[in-house]
Amino acid sequence: MREINRVKEAELYRTAASLFNKNGYTGTSMRQICKSIGIRESSLYHYIRGKEDLLYHICEWSMYHSLTAIEPIAQLPLRPDLKLKKMIEKHIIILIQNANEHATMLKEMRSLSVPKRRKIIRLRDQYKSIFREVIEAGFQQKLFNAVDIKVMTFALLGMMNSIIRWYSVDGETKIEDIAAIFSDLFLKGARR
Amino acid sequence: MREINRVKEAELYRTAASLFNKNGYTGTSMRQICKSIGIRESSLYHYIRGKEDLLYHICEWSMYHSLTAIEPIAQLPLRPDLKLKKMIEKHIIILIQNANEHATMLKEMRSLSVPKRRKIIRLRDQYKSIFREVIEAGFQQKLFNAVDIKVMTFALLGMMNSIIRWYSVDGETKIEDIAAIFSDLFLKGARR
Repeated sequence: MREINRVKEAELYRTAASLFNKNGYTGTSMRQICKSIGIRESSLYHYIRGKEDLLYHICEWSMYHSLTAIEPIAQLPLRPDLKLKKMIEKHIIILIQNANEHATMLKEMRSLSVPKRRKIIRLRDQYKSIFREVIEAGFQQKLFNAVDIKVMTFALLGMMNSIIRWYSVDGETKIEDIAAIFSDLFLKGARR
Repeated sequence: MREINRVKEAELYRTAASLFNKNGYTGTSMRQICKSIGIRESSLYHYIRGKEDLLYHICEWSMYHSLTAIEPIAQLPLRPDLKLKKMIEKHIIILIQNANEHATMLKEMRSLSVPKRRKIIRLRDQYKSIFREVIEAGFQQKLFNAVDIKVMTFALLGMMNSIIRWYSVDGETKIEDIAAIFSDLFLKGARR
């Protein structure tokens, strides 16, 4: 019974993320979510307290998922530029592998109430600082140009995350190729 | 009387864009907009048909404003990389000078009904193709690396437009400096 619930719960988050990404958070009703996974609205409240709870869990999952993927790479004993290349490629690939969840976090976070939003922002800042530190190490080892590290970090994350807005799984370009183009572009651009 | 109306109308769009950017389109009511500019809700309908009309006009204005600023630069008899540098810097500066309008277009366009959204998407595609053509000219003149032009165009626009999500007018970095960092980063990254 417990196992069944856990499967249903995972399906609930996946479905909600897909609907939030497609129709927006405010454009999606609990009724639609229930209908999509075939449960009654009253049963839904075994799993969650409400729609905002769903959104919060999706945002939190998105950030933990990204942190868990990137942190081990940032710890590798590699030269900062080579490490950053691996981080950029990993970021882009996991972004697309779970596009609905990450898109929901990026586009709908502002719909969270202030205390919940603060928690997600804290995770996002933590994530950003991992990239920032590797860029900074690259400056210190004179691999990268000595321009504004904060601005460079924003440029990189902005460029990468924008993929969620145009990439199509059925499109002609493979995500691995896009990841390689983006990492080349940034690393060549940043190089001293 | 006509003059007064036109001033009020401009104020209406400015105020709506500011509220849409701050609280989201769905999070902003017509009542709040009216209260902010000090007119009665019934008077509002002299100027517009409804909230979606406001959003549409803001999105349309944002795109015309961008097109009008960029098209003359794209026509200049300049080498593609030098032209692109000017275009990048102009794009970033006008993006921030009218941040509320451009942010509303970028973040809220999906709230438009399908026919209206299509019109804005057409303008956006037109805008994107101006950048794409200059990047393509750079490839043809062997100034830029021969990688995927479509992906490079998306990378550039994504990187630039993400500024709207983090830039603060009161921040420590001047927008002109950010514009220069971004254009250097992209042009060095794209160079052969």
